[in-house]
Amino acid sequence: MLRGWKFVSVIICFLGIVMQGPAQAADRDKLLTDPGVYGTFAAFRIDDEWGRLDQKTRLAHLNTFKGVIERHREKLEIDTYLLRGLSDHADFLLRVHGTELKDTQQFLMDVLATPFGQYVSAETILNGLTKKASYVPGFPDNLKADLKAPSESGPYVVVIPIRKDADWWALPQDQRLAMMQEHTEAALPYHKTVKRKLYHSTGLDDFDFITYFETAKLEDLHSLVLALSKVKEAHHNRRFGHPTLLGTIKTVDQLVEALGQ
Amino acid sequence: MLRGWKFVSVIICFLGIVMQGPAQAADRDKLLTDPGVYGTFAAFRIDDEWGRLDQKTRLAHLNTFKGVIERHREKLEIDTYLLRGLSDHADFLLRVHGTELKDTQQFLMDVLATPFGQYVSAETILNGLTKKASYVPGFPDNLKADLKAPSESGPYVVVIPIRKDADWWALPQDQRLAMMQEHTEAALPYHKTVKRKLYHSTGLDDFDFITYFETAKLEDLHSLVLALSKVKEAHHNRRFGHPTLLGTIKTVDQLVEALGQ
Amino acid sequence: MLRGWKFVSVIICFLGIVMQGPAQAADRDKLLTDPGVYGTFAAFRIDDEWGRLDQKTRLAHLNTFKGVIERHREKLEIDTYLLRGLSDHADFLLRVHGTELKDTQQFLMDVLATPFGQYVSAETILNGLTKKASYVPGFPDNLKADLKAPSESGPYVVVIPIRKDADWWALPQDQRLAMMQEHTEAALPYHKTVKRKLYHSTGLDDFDFITYFETAKLEDLHSLVLALSKVKEAHHNRRFGHPTLLGTIKTVDQLVEALGQ
Amino acid sequence: MLRGWKFVSVIICFLGIVMQGPAQAADRDKLLTDPGVYGTFAAFRIDDEWGRLDQKTRLAHLNTFKGVIERHREKLEIDTYLLRGLSDHADFLLRVHGTELKDTQQFLMDVLATPFGQYVSAETILNGLTKKASYVPGFPDNLKADLKAPSESGPYVVVIPIRKDADWWALPQDQRLAMMQEHTEAALPYHKTVKRKLYHSTGLDDFDFITYFETAKLEDLHSLVLALSKVKEAHHNRRFGHPTLLGTIKTVDQLVEALGQ
Amino acid sequence: MLRGWKFVSVIICFLGIVMQGPAQAADRDKLLTDPGVYGTFAAFRIDDEWGRLDQKTRLAHLNTFKGVIERHREKLEIDTYLLRGLSDHADFLLRVHGTELKDTQQFLMDVLATPFGQYVSAETILNGLTKKASYVPGFPDNLKADLKAPSESGPYVVVIPIRKDADWWALPQDQRLAMMQEHTEAALPYHKTVKRKLYHSTGLDDFDFITYFETAKLEDLHSLVLALSKVKEAHHNRRFGHPTLLGTIKTVDQLVEALGQ
Repeated sequence: MLRGWKFVSVIICFLGIVMQGPAQAADRDKLLTDPGVYGTFAAFRIDDEWGRLDQKTRLAHLNTFKGVIERHREKLEIDTYLLRGLSDHADFLLRVHGTELKDTQQFLMDVLATPFGQYVSAETILNGLTKKASYVPGFPDNLKADLKAPSESGPYVVVIPIRKDADWWALPQDQRLAMMQEHTEAALPYHKTVKRKLYHSTGLDDFDFITYFETAKLEDLHSLVLALSKVKEAHHNRRFGHPTLLGTIKTVDQLVEALGQ
Repeated sequence: MLRGWKFVSVIICFLGIVMQGPAQAADRDKLLTDPGVYGTFAAFRIDDEWGRLDQKTRLAHLNTFKGVIERHREKLEIDTYLLRGLSDHADFLLRVHGTELKDTQQFLMDVLATPFGQYVSAETILNGLTKKASYVPGFPDNLKADLKAPSESGPYVVVIPIRKDADWWALPQDQRLAMMQEHTEAALPYHKTVKRKLYHSTGLDDFDFITYFETAKLEDLHSLVLALSKVKEAHHNRRFGHPTLLGTIKTVDQLVEALGQ
Repeated sequence: MLRGWKFVSVIICFLGIVMQGPAQAADRDKLLTDPGVYGTFAAFRIDDEWGRLDQKTRLAHLNTFKGVIERHREKLEIDTYLLRGLSDHADFLLRVHGTELKDTQQFLMDVLATPFGQYVSAETILNGLTKKASYVPGFPDNLKADLKAPSESGPYVVVIPIRKDADWWALPQDQRLAMMQEHTEAALPYHKTVKRKLYHSTGLDDFDFITYFETAKLEDLHSLVLALSKVKEAHHNRRFGHPTLLGTIKTVDQLVEALGQ
Repeated sequence: MLRGWKFVSVIICFLGIVMQGPAQAADRDKLLTDPGVYGTFAAFRIDDEWGRLDQKTRLAHLNTFKGVIERHREKLEIDTYLLRGLSDHADFLLRVHGTELKDTQQFLMDVLATPFGQYVSAETILNGLTKKASYVPGFPDNLKADLKAPSESGPYVVVIPIRKDADWWALPQDQRLAMMQEHTEAALPYHKTVKRKLYHSTGLDDFDFITYFETAKLEDLHSLVLALSKVKEAHHNRRFGHPTLLGTIKTVDQLVEALGQ
Repeated sequence: MLRGWKFVSVIICFLGIVMQGPAQAADRDKLLTDPGVYGTFAAFRIDDEWGRLDQKTRLAHLNTFKGVIERHREKLEIDTYLLRGLSDHADFLLRVHGTELKDTQQFLMDVLATPFGQYVSAETILNGLTKKASYVPGFPDNLKADLKAPSESGPYVVVIPIRKDADWWALPQDQRLAMMQEHTEAALPYHKTVKRKLYHSTGLDDFDFITYFETAKLEDLHSLVLALSKVKEAHHNRRFGHPTLLGTIKTVDQLVEALGQ
């Protein structure tokens, strides 16, 4: 009977997706480039019992998970990543962009309420906010121009949250501007091959920033973070990483396939 | 038979609520504004097995939880929040105000003794005390007046516990007063959109203060905490957050609905 | 049959208590006031399965726990406290005084060997030693006299372990004496309403001191710990709390009743 | 039927290995000596239930694990180590060298998808990159020559990850060169009996370096690490170890035999 | 059938012990006094399910554990301690001396492979090495003579691992010698009643030293560690304890009896 129930639930799930028609996608470009957008990074661990389910059940469960993602794409921009094998303590990561964190909360509640969600627990949740660049307007014109060149992406993702020390925030704006210009110039050689995005998280979690990287060349990402370790501003990192999340960018279908293995 | 027992227990629970008549509510205004009131923040995690119960059982269990809240409202002021999806390691938060912590303890014991309580464990418990403002009486009159303007609330809640360093407490009162005036002036631009409440917890848990925020504009809350990071008093925060709890304000019915999903 | 066995075990337990006659109580006064006595603070967590047992079984199990306490009272002074609801990660606390830690170990082994003990794990164990006052003999006479006045007790208990820094221990005795006199004077206003006891734990666990408080006025305890934060000696606290344990004093019967709920 | 299924799965696994023919081995020498190669250290813990399986089942499960290793050796160089008994919290370690971390991720995904993988969780994962020596080119010729002498290996392995402080990275290259020369000279007496390999991990996990040691003489390894503690560069180790992993080098067959015991 | 299997396994175990005849004991004196010997401290936690087994099964399981200890005494010197009740998070401790850590690893593997080992997990493992005294040769003759007097032992054991700071190791040998002479003189009054042994662990785990104490007078051990806190060398302890393990010395039979309770 249990089996039957599962079958029915899969059918219902599919019907649900079909019946609501093609989800009207949130405006990805706007959500990924506008200031004032909230970004949540939710890293989940899958518990041991998951692997002991038979594959059919796992795939059915994952389909309900996929259904929840599709349904929320109307309001939210949702990206999916596989951490398993490259990060300890977490198996997959969801990055969610939205204009209100309550929508993100509802989405993650819905994920956790799926049959798949019963085998999953939130290991790390980071919340940030996109803002207009604080220092770039004060940079020289050539540096501003360089920053406008496009960056190449994936398949690798790295997320490093950062907490600054009290001295950093106590510095006058012009000194922070000078240090951030040095920081930005150090990063420039990797601008083409490492795509970056910054979220501000003071007051929203235990960090001040969430730094997000995509690259095809992990060696360049390593060189970039190393270059940033050498500038004066790095002295003001009270906590850097812990956790550092490393994984690969996956479509929902790829993630479902990987977790259903 | 188990099913039957559950049914009976739900009936009994309902009867219990009906029979005791409308609980005589504690004086919310007094408890939320008077000094000398204890505030306990209890963040709970729900274990994996909860999600595997069928929905009817979950709702019955949650009703006994709701019954316990109703019953204790005679003496205590109880607020409920959903953390799930926005904070890691905890799913929901209870804020309890009372004039004696032993009443709060009895309430939380009763919660944990419900069928719902069997699936729940206390992840973080913070205890604080409301006191007359330590520094405000020494502030200039215009600042005092500004602080009397009302603040807007919810749906978001943030709780940040803080531990000061030894140097802070060793400072003479007038130096602390000057720093707290700078702190308060930095916070003033966000007074209208972010509601704050302060609890003193030295000796009652591992922190000195529990800072509590409600807002509809999380971006303003972020700007407020950032502004507070830039004043001299921030150098004396030995621990800030860890945990930072972020969630949404819910009525008991909304919380029950969310957890019964 | 399991049921029957439990019944028999309860009978045997009762018989055991009856047969050994009234346990000859350890000399509480001596154990609580003499120097050279070992005090162990054992905070236990009760696991989730406990709450899923039916109440009759829970009470039978708790009775064997009570029996073990009675039996060991011949040699040991045992106090019981309820932490559940006010401290995270621990549910109850045993404070054991004895002249030899091996007796305390045997007692706690016997607790863990009861049916109740199967649902319990030791979350924090602190071991300390009572000693003659190190600094009081050097205090002025009026201060010594003030310290002899009696203090009022409970229902609240707070336990705060402390580790001093290397600089503290490197100070010459007269400088430590001067600082401890300042410390003691700062504490004096709360002498009447907060009862204190000090245990030395260097070499016996990861702390140097276990400070123990009983009070009916938690607000005074808060003010006391705050006053102690403001004296110079507080700069030498490398670790203060972590954990801070807050709960209520209970007789064994009250604790058994609370845990059997 | 379960039994039968397990038997079939073992057969299939063996067939899988046989059918794919002798796996074309990755070029071990190149992967272990070239710069630009990624090294992942994955330390796994085996859960309690594993030991309660009967031995036949355990061996069958371990054979599927072995099969996965064989299959991935086409692209990856995989070394296996037993930590159980010498390190807490982890039972075995895999060191994986490859030119792309996504291949390593797929390998570890496949390990975790085996029946054996259901009893295993990733306790620590460290990712590093081999690079051309940063300081050696600036060393005097005789030191360079000494470093070319061969080192003896195993049966012991030690892995110590290291994080440098901000001051280290802020030093000009020539000062770091001078310190690293002192470091290298201090290590030279142990060059013959302790084999070392260095991985750079800035940006790939929470460390800057993964230092890897093989030796037959643990006492020499101890003396080497002690000698390195005494040079000026050691002041810049913000985190050293945590974890320090100690174990023994095993072939896959030896590891399978040890875990199947 | 399970029962029968257990019975047979116990028989086989007993036979095993009988058949191998009286194990040729390792040379205890040499292993406990020679330099160049490895000492491993393995503290284990017993899981909750253990206590739910019936006593006969527990005793049979413990006998296989005892058998493994007997068998390995040919090569290794194995001491057993009960931590339960006096230390949190660990129940018993094995101290193993041997000339090769791979023998110790094989012993602990064999312990974990017994039926008893299925209920046990390694909470803390510390590895150290005995060495010729580094500083004693430089001490004045009268101090050397005092150190040769015998020390009294047990029933108490305390293990405190220590990590020194970078400044310690950077000091010239003569300054460290002077500080260690002060350290040794401070310890001398407790030489008779507290037996000590030192292990060097740099590079073998996350500490530099494992300090081991046996005494019948815990108060003297407390006074000793306190006296050592007051000398200049104590400023260079970066980590002291964490964990501090306190327990009682037991023969294997006594440990088996205690755990079988």
